[in-house]
Amino acid sequence: MSHVLRLFVENALQAGGQIVLSDNSVHYISKVMRGRIGTIIRLFNGKDGEWQSKIVQIERRQVVLQIEENLRPQTICPDIELAFAPVKRARQEFIVEKATELGVRNMQIVNTKFSNQKPARSERLQTIIIEAAEQTERMDLPSIAEIIDLKDWLSNFPANRVLIFCDESGTETTQVLPTLQKQSGSKFSVLIGPEGGFCEQERELVAQTPGALAVSLGPRILRSDTAALAVLTLVQAVCGDW
Amino acid sequence: MSHVLRLFVENALQAGGQIVLSDNSVHYISKVMRGRIGTIIRLFNGKDGEWQSKIVQIERRQVVLQIEENLRPQTICPDIELAFAPVKRARQEFIVEKATELGVRNMQIVNTKFSNQKPARSERLQTIIIEAAEQTERMDLPSIAEIIDLKDWLSNFPANRVLIFCDESGTETTQVLPTLQKQSGSKFSVLIGPEGGFCEQERELVAQTPGALAVSLGPRILRSDTAALAVLTLVQAVCGDW
Repeated sequence: MSHVLRLFVENALQAGGQIVLSDNSVHYISKVMRGRIGTIIRLFNGKDGEWQSKIVQIERRQVVLQIEENLRPQTICPDIELAFAPVKRARQEFIVEKATELGVRNMQIVNTKFSNQKPARSERLQTIIIEAAEQTERMDLPSIAEIIDLKDWLSNFPANRVLIFCDESGTETTQVLPTLQKQSGSKFSVLIGPEGGFCEQERELVAQTPGALAVSLGPRILRSDTAALAVLTLVQAVCGDW
Repeated sequence: MSHVLRLFVENALQAGGQIVLSDNSVHYISKVMRGRIGTIIRLFNGKDGEWQSKIVQIERRQVVLQIEENLRPQTICPDIELAFAPVKRARQEFIVEKATELGVRNMQIVNTKFSNQKPARSERLQTIIIEAAEQTERMDLPSIAEIIDLKDWLSNFPANRVLIFCDESGTETTQVLPTLQKQSGSKFSVLIGPEGGFCEQERELVAQTPGALAVSLGPRILRSDTAALAVLTLVQAVCGDW
């Protein structure tokens, strides 16, 4: 089924229902994907699972879909959060796309002392999230929360979560992986700093947070976007849903 | 030292030597990084380790550097190879940048049945490799080999290497990681297919290659660039130099 067009919609999905699309997806369906009457489209809305639908009407500005049958039940990604400081726009977009593919449940943008970039526009990030979710076959969309100060985020950090952050003097991955494995079933937050790293005070605040686990990602210096992907990969591989 | 400008040069590096730069790096040093006489620049050439140098002459089209002292001995990244099929140009460039940061020793572009993109220009990829190596503090540059057919690459695959490839029906990461750990010290090749995946015949050829190890990267479908990074992360974290 993976070659069948897959679309996120806001509408409720249930057997026998019809959906009228009149947004950007009309162009995408008719021009890019060359949809015709009878073309099968898979739909998901983050709540009702995945459904097969069929185009029953197609006009210049409107497409009508007939919902046919449920293909997969609703699922939700593991409770893994990614908190990241704003980096350059292209790299920020990249982090959001990859975190969606890697199956995080939510994202939080945090402001740090050495952050010298603004968060990307939230509509733009939402578009990236939807495209990545469609592509990667996930059933839910990750949420993405507006920027807050790192210290506020830390001071409200829930006691039942593991906070993973990167630090050159942290534990080597060969040691961290067994530690993570023992915490399988826990909830994880991955914190990634800006390109300039955390300031000394921030580093102390992070390290003192209950549940904090510093991980070293080897002898080379990774850009923020690379570090984000690497840590999410390790968490998913050892105690996520991989 | 990480805030000190770091440059890859082709020249030999030895104490007391001088280097004359007259290429694009002159603009970068003088305009972007605002170098002046006396500015310290770290140099590496992939052979002689990392050296501290100082600007002793700076003109519009030329910068002269005096080499002062050796900062770090030469090192080489672990013997991890990334073989990938050409994907869209931006994602191809991304794979090359990230593989350099993650510390692969060499890259090989492979042509597969479902590849519908051309390899990016090799000069462009070389520029990306150099920038990423400078940034990530590695001492060597990964090599990148011209495209060859997947079946030719496989038929010459060395008997002493582990071939890791992604497959939905492969082994789960929680099982693969201990397997990899036992092979610590081995040489690894990571093979990533195009967006359309391998054809049936290619999949059989890959699976039958001695040393082949199929890994499943979870319930979502990852783009080729994401899969490349994820597998490289796992190899480095478990049996590389992290």
